[in-house]
Amino acid sequence: MYKELPLISLQRMPVYLNYLKGMPATEKFVSSGHIAEALGLGEVLVRKDLAFTAAVGRPRVGYVREELISAIEEFLCYNGKRHAVIVGYGAVGKAILDYGGFGYYGIEIVAAFDSDSEKLGVSQSGKPIYDINEAKSQIERLGAKLAIICVPAKYAQPVADLLVESGVKAILSFAPTTLKTPEGVEVRQIDVAANLAILSSSIK
Amino acid sequence: MYKELPLISLQRMPVYLNYLKGMPATEKFVSSGHIAEALGLGEVLVRKDLAFTAAVGRPRVGYVREELISAIEEFLCYNGKRHAVIVGYGAVGKAILDYGGFGYYGIEIVAAFDSDSEKLGVSQSGKPIYDINEAKSQIERLGAKLAIICVPAKYAQPVADLLVESGVKAILSFAPTTLKTPEGVEVRQIDVAANLAILSSSIK
Repeated sequence: MYKELPLISLQRMPVYLNYLKGMPATEKFVSSGHIAEALGLGEVLVRKDLAFTAAVGRPRVGYVREELISAIEEFLCYNGKRHAVIVGYGAVGKAILDYGGFGYYGIEIVAAFDSDSEKLGVSQSGKPIYDINEAKSQIERLGAKLAIICVPAKYAQPVADLLVESGVKAILSFAPTTLKTPEGVEVRQIDVAANLAILSSSIK
Repeated sequence: MYKELPLISLQRMPVYLNYLKGMPATEKFVSSGHIAEALGLGEVLVRKDLAFTAAVGRPRVGYVREELISAIEEFLCYNGKRHAVIVGYGAVGKAILDYGGFGYYGIEIVAAFDSDSEKLGVSQSGKPIYDINEAKSQIERLGAKLAIICVPAKYAQPVADLLVESGVKAILSFAPTTLKTPEGVEVRQIDVAANLAILSSSIK
């Protein structure tokens, strides 16, 4: 999916969705120029992004707003929902497990795992937290190819190894450490502290 | 601070720190080649990064490990601790307020703000959660120029405006929406869902 789509365009899709959904219901049409101006983007860029969806703009009036919303949503969920799991049900894992924003991208977080037996059970939004020992069997059962690592840095590599063994093909890690995975298993790291440090360095 | 330092080098500093601190205590020396190999980086790149610190490598043996650790730590905290505040004490705000990893970069999260009176008080690690109405006075008092927005997307822009009014110069936002700020106020967005979507799109 998204074969030809630049990552940065993909990242803008929910931004468009948010904006379009936030417009007054009375606005039937919306042009790429209007979207571009509202979001501070170039018009050509917006038009190129939206061309990845099935939406068709009309000369002079632009897109029918509701059609454009549906087209972006369809585009993002094109292949049906992908299942993802979380390892580490601490503060970060908790925040992510119950966050609803993944649906925009056709992703559903279906379960979390932890090694602390006191954390096991069901989350606020009704999602299961399983024992880490069940990870392999549950991940296989759930068909999850996506996983999010929310454990402390020192546990991140063994967790990544376990995930790879369980058939996971892509890992998002919040652990501030470099993970080694075999070829064919993609890893992205979100380093909140590093992002803040970069901002800090921008202050005169 | 970090005037000439590329952002990506800054981002690697804590990775080096983590690696160096994790080495067996018996390893007195460490070479840039060794670090490069362990972290899957180029040796020239590692040497260039470390040259931003005050550490001096010795021919053949490399750096004294403890000296290099101190040099990186000193480098990151060169200008003393910077204060940062959080707005929105939901699951994400909570996770960040009590996360200890910012110290690596010379940043201290000193307070959070929320509009829900039931959330006000003191966090697990002893940090204050103030009423959002106190934000301007407290941010000025604390001298915080850095802020992290952890509120839902629809509240993010008014919160950003309030932060700018309070003297904040750089904002890290977890809200999946584009923020407008005046010139001189830097914004970075961490979009967890978009990152996961990008990974998802990499799965064959």
